[in-house]
Amino acid sequence: MSKLLIVGTVAFDAIETPFGKTDKILGGAGTYIGLSAAHFGVDAAVVSVVGDDFPQEYLDLLKNRNIDISAIEIVKGGKTFFWSGRYHNDLNSRDTLDTQLNVLADFSPKVPEAYSDAEILMLGNLHPMVQLSVIDQMTTKPKLTILDTMNFWMDNTWDELMQVIEKVDVITINDEEARQLSGEYSLVKAAQKIHGMGPKYVVIKKGEHGALLFHNGNIFFAPALPLEEVFDPTGAGDTFAGGFAGYLAKHEDISFESMKNAIIYGSNLASFCVEKFGTQRMESLTKSEVQDRLQQFKDLTQFEIELS
Amino acid sequence: MSKLLIVGTVAFDAIETPFGKTDKILGGAGTYIGLSAAHFGVDAAVVSVVGDDFPQEYLDLLKNRNIDISAIEIVKGGKTFFWSGRYHNDLNSRDTLDTQLNVLADFSPKVPEAYSDAEILMLGNLHPMVQLSVIDQMTTKPKLTILDTMNFWMDNTWDELMQVIEKVDVITINDEEARQLSGEYSLVKAAQKIHGMGPKYVVIKKGEHGALLFHNGNIFFAPALPLEEVFDPTGAGDTFAGGFAGYLAKHEDISFESMKNAIIYGSNLASFCVEKFGTQRMESLTKSEVQDRLQQFKDLTQFEIELS
Repeated sequence: MSKLLIVGTVAFDAIETPFGKTDKILGGAGTYIGLSAAHFGVDAAVVSVVGDDFPQEYLDLLKNRNIDISAIEIVKGGKTFFWSGRYHNDLNSRDTLDTQLNVLADFSPKVPEAYSDAEILMLGNLHPMVQLSVIDQMTTKPKLTILDTMNFWMDNTWDELMQVIEKVDVITINDEEARQLSGEYSLVKAAQKIHGMGPKYVVIKKGEHGALLFHNGNIFFAPALPLEEVFDPTGAGDTFAGGFAGYLAKHEDISFESMKNAIIYGSNLASFCVEKFGTQRMESLTKSEVQDRLQQFKDLTQFEIELS
Repeated sequence: MSKLLIVGTVAFDAIETPFGKTDKILGGAGTYIGLSAAHFGVDAAVVSVVGDDFPQEYLDLLKNRNIDISAIEIVKGGKTFFWSGRYHNDLNSRDTLDTQLNVLADFSPKVPEAYSDAEILMLGNLHPMVQLSVIDQMTTKPKLTILDTMNFWMDNTWDELMQVIEKVDVITINDEEARQLSGEYSLVKAAQKIHGMGPKYVVIKKGEHGALLFHNGNIFFAPALPLEEVFDPTGAGDTFAGGFAGYLAKHEDISFESMKNAIIYGSNLASFCVEKFGTQRMESLTKSEVQDRLQQFKDLTQFEIELS
């Protein structure tokens, strides 16, 4: 079993979808990545920051799943990062209603000593300088560093983002972000250009249209499971990334073949995440539910044609 | 080998994409379906109509691939159906610049006697009453009737379309059309409602995002092959349908397992269609190119995870 170090927000979300709305609930990339990776029973730690308004029960939710939370800093008198958004009817797009950085504005991540030699480093979506600081604190270069980022950092912190991108092995972004980052419309060409920026592996997340893995001229595709209801897409991308990282940490195998399985597991876990508001579904998820759904992914994609 | 009867337009297209534009070239759903199905060396006939402005060399193109063209009526003094369109930069949407129905306005299809007992009937996108007339002319009920249609007929000839839909086994439409037809946003729910209208099999084409096959609670997904360049999407959906129908006709097996392979072959053939303008790529396509690409589809989708 490899050690997995996760850096990402632990936060409050308030979400509106066509099906309802929530008050402030548990959210944040670090939370979703952690809950998803925890499915694999790996040794994992989350580096993050919250204010002292953050309920202990939320932290315990991670702790009870064997996630080391000692590097989640609690700022006395500080307020936790808050995001609020409203999804459109198709659930594919959303408006941000409110963003309060609060304690995240001055976040200076501290990698715990026990995880400074983690074999797998998962950098959740954050300011590139925060991600860079975590990379710099590793005493041993991780076997695999996975970067999640978004268009906001491409728009506002291009140079800093480039510094991070050249240091990572895997980048996970959505299709529009891949196009923005590369200037190429074709995702095949986009992945080629992004390889040239550093990452040997490019994962392009297409939401309900699945995910593509590019490496060295090879391409693998994992569909999203067609669902009767998508209730709340919040956290699906982070759950996908957490499943990807968690699978690789458990199996100590970062070959392309292993990564194929990792993105299937990422899609599998993400398909649960969207079934309820926030982290609700991930909290109740059992191993046998994940195994049953793995069979659904096989039925969905596997075929037998003899090459003539 | 089953006999395959195809009804669909044989026409002129003029196409503009970001990469260039064509004069009047060979087009039409019947043409693309025929060229694609011909890959399987099946006994196939096309029922259609053209004017006497239509070049013999275009008809010979089908004839030389063993497609029976005796039921393509040539109207003396008539002009062939003409469509002209311009694709947007993303190639996912297009504007129609011109539509001249010409001889198609009075098209009264005549099913050739030798094909009135065809086991597989492929109804290309046309006025529902034309499609219905072909169904009515079959002396033996086909083992499998496949319907392609589009939003235009949902907008303008709903009742007639419903009459056709209740008589067919398979319907192929795109995701937006599935939503319009069913009133359901979720494609899983949409397919359930469409099953209730008649078709036991629902194929939802998502263009660059692949295709879904629904039957009796089972779902199968075929991705589109990620390509470096998509040159011209015209005819991709018809080529997909022709590959689907052609595979099933060749293998005389209309089980769900066989249909999975049929939609993989449909996606395979469609991935070639878009590489050049119009029918160009399909004209030069060889069996070994299709076999090589089948291996790419396997590499793209097949994985090995043991269920624990």
